[in-house]
Amino acid sequence: MDIPSVMCMKGGEEETSYTKNCSLQARVIDAAKSSVDEAVVRLLCATNAQKLTIADLGCASGQNTLSVVANITDTIEQTCQRLGRFPPEVHLFLNDLPRNDFNSVFSSLQSCKAREATNLGRCFIAGVAGSFYGRLFPRRSIDFFHSSSSLHWLSQDPLKAHQKNGLLLNKGNIFISEKSLPFVLDAYSRQFKQDFSDFLKFRSIEMATGGRMVLVLIGRMGLDATSEVTRHMDVLSSALMDMVQEGYITEEKVDSFNIPLYPPCVPEVAHEILTEGSFSLDYLKVFELDYDIERKEAISNMTKGERVALSLQAVFEPLLASHFGSNIIEGLFSKFSNAIDKGNCEKERKMAYLMVSLIRKS
Amino acid sequence: MDIPSVMCMKGGEEETSYTKNCSLQARVIDAAKSSVDEAVVRLLCATNAQKLTIADLGCASGQNTLSVVANITDTIEQTCQRLGRFPPEVHLFLNDLPRNDFNSVFSSLQSCKAREATNLGRCFIAGVAGSFYGRLFPRRSIDFFHSSSSLHWLSQDPLKAHQKNGLLLNKGNIFISEKSLPFVLDAYSRQFKQDFSDFLKFRSIEMATGGRMVLVLIGRMGLDATSEVTRHMDVLSSALMDMVQEGYITEEKVDSFNIPLYPPCVPEVAHEILTEGSFSLDYLKVFELDYDIERKEAISNMTKGERVALSLQAVFEPLLASHFGSNIIEGLFSKFSNAIDKGNCEKERKMAYLMVSLIRKS
Repeated sequence: MDIPSVMCMKGGEEETSYTKNCSLQARVIDAAKSSVDEAVVRLLCATNAQKLTIADLGCASGQNTLSVVANITDTIEQTCQRLGRFPPEVHLFLNDLPRNDFNSVFSSLQSCKAREATNLGRCFIAGVAGSFYGRLFPRRSIDFFHSSSSLHWLSQDPLKAHQKNGLLLNKGNIFISEKSLPFVLDAYSRQFKQDFSDFLKFRSIEMATGGRMVLVLIGRMGLDATSEVTRHMDVLSSALMDMVQEGYITEEKVDSFNIPLYPPCVPEVAHEILTEGSFSLDYLKVFELDYDIERKEAISNMTKGERVALSLQAVFEPLLASHFGSNIIEGLFSKFSNAIDKGNCEKERKMAYLMVSLIRKS
Repeated sequence: MDIPSVMCMKGGEEETSYTKNCSLQARVIDAAKSSVDEAVVRLLCATNAQKLTIADLGCASGQNTLSVVANITDTIEQTCQRLGRFPPEVHLFLNDLPRNDFNSVFSSLQSCKAREATNLGRCFIAGVAGSFYGRLFPRRSIDFFHSSSSLHWLSQDPLKAHQKNGLLLNKGNIFISEKSLPFVLDAYSRQFKQDFSDFLKFRSIEMATGGRMVLVLIGRMGLDATSEVTRHMDVLSSALMDMVQEGYITEEKVDSFNIPLYPPCVPEVAHEILTEGSFSLDYLKVFELDYDIERKEAISNMTKGERVALSLQAVFEPLLASHFGSNIIEGLFSKFSNAIDKGNCEKERKMAYLMVSLIRKS
């Protein structure tokens, strides 16, 4: 499976779509807003350029895409007002993999533009389809990179090379679990380091001197290999193994699939930034969010299992469907939802996120 | 009806889609290729910049979009080889209205990139959704604008303002016909001049000094108000009036609809270029193409009426469906096809195109 050509959030507008189930990612954007604002303000204060070029990497589609655009353009407008300066023209690039629903992005931007003509009047928006683990923009052309809830995705299955040799090193699991061999965690960690290092290398070529970058990704609080992601993936692995027992899919199909996602810890990220060397580290923070906040707010009459299943389906369905076939999806998430409600999984934890602010060295 | 929010070529991959019926537009691109090449070569010779920024306005989707990209990047590569120079990085923007199928554009670019990695290796492509009768890019950011088979589309129904006053000035017709009042031709011409003048004004802001622009649009050979487009639109008007007789649509619905397309003659285009004043005219040529070349090549066992109907449906269906409803489309083009085959319309003519090459004054 070639990850960049199958990977996307679930498109469309139906109940299981990403657009309808992206409240966690919205809270991540909110949690990082003041950091993004600060980076934009510092950029504006450092230069008097008539144009600011900004790229959002892993923009997805739906309300979150628009709120990133609105936050950044509002901050530029307000800052320039405060500084008594005419706002620069903004060239804003929205990037995601080619299967992202760019038609929906462009259509929602039109209505948003019509509504908020003042803020976006001099903001020119373009879509860019491609992997951020490769080149996306001309040299020295971008002043500010932003990426939220995207960089934990890997460019490929970290165990893929070993599968080619017939070695199935993560039997019965689709992610790093407590039962995984140490080799599995190591392969995931190495893949992340390679990908993140490539990401930094390509962005350093594309970024203008003095440019800034704010990245937010799923991470781990400490060196412990497991996280809230592990808990969900363990439940998903079990649900898949149940489907093997019931004859819907083969065991080999499960053994040969690994979710290409890695929540790094702080030292792993810091090490790659220092090694790559093009960026000075402004800060690297960790913060936590409840996964299932709706439970507390009681805004839904769904069970907790149903809510968590929906949020995972919106993110993982295209990937799972391309490997296992789309016919298993409904049964799989129904099993997942039941397992969460029965509570036969590890204790709930908070989701950890890493927030990194970087400045391009001259 | 707000033209920019409904207008697009017919999406998808079915037999009546634009992708399957764009051979005329492909021949227009071929006919202009040497002019586009020449403009690109002159741009390269005039500067040693490490980056060239290019925009294709009205890119549509399908093979034609890709061939424009391939032609331009091939020319850059070959010219630089000849000049013994390292090719510049190319930032290429593909623009069309927001309902254009950008998902299909991005997906086809991926496979094309994989095939021709050498040519497109340093070409960074972005999609831009919006009307070229407004601003699309930051100031002074584009070196070369290209537009093929797009600028004859108007920003709005030229008779719309008068409809608001209850005046239906083009009864029984959906375009300029020989039976139209002189006012109708005049209103179409005025709308074209306004739109083309806006187009030039916005491009002059967006274009870098010394930048170039090659535009190809449907036009008229002389001052005669009618053209091959008139002939097709007369047949379409008659087919619609038949549907009025048969009770499928109301007469008022036909009377209140006008195709927002105008084939200008050379003096109209030249006048707007001189009046706007930002561009020096390199040249302005007219050329002609057969509309229905397949007839001669005998590559199809369809009747001529069926072939012409398909090519028109691919272009006009979204517009017609948004006004008359999609349920009339099949019947309408079946009537159209029969009328063409029965030969009860004016004598066939060639399609005329205007080709304009402009240079941004400093």
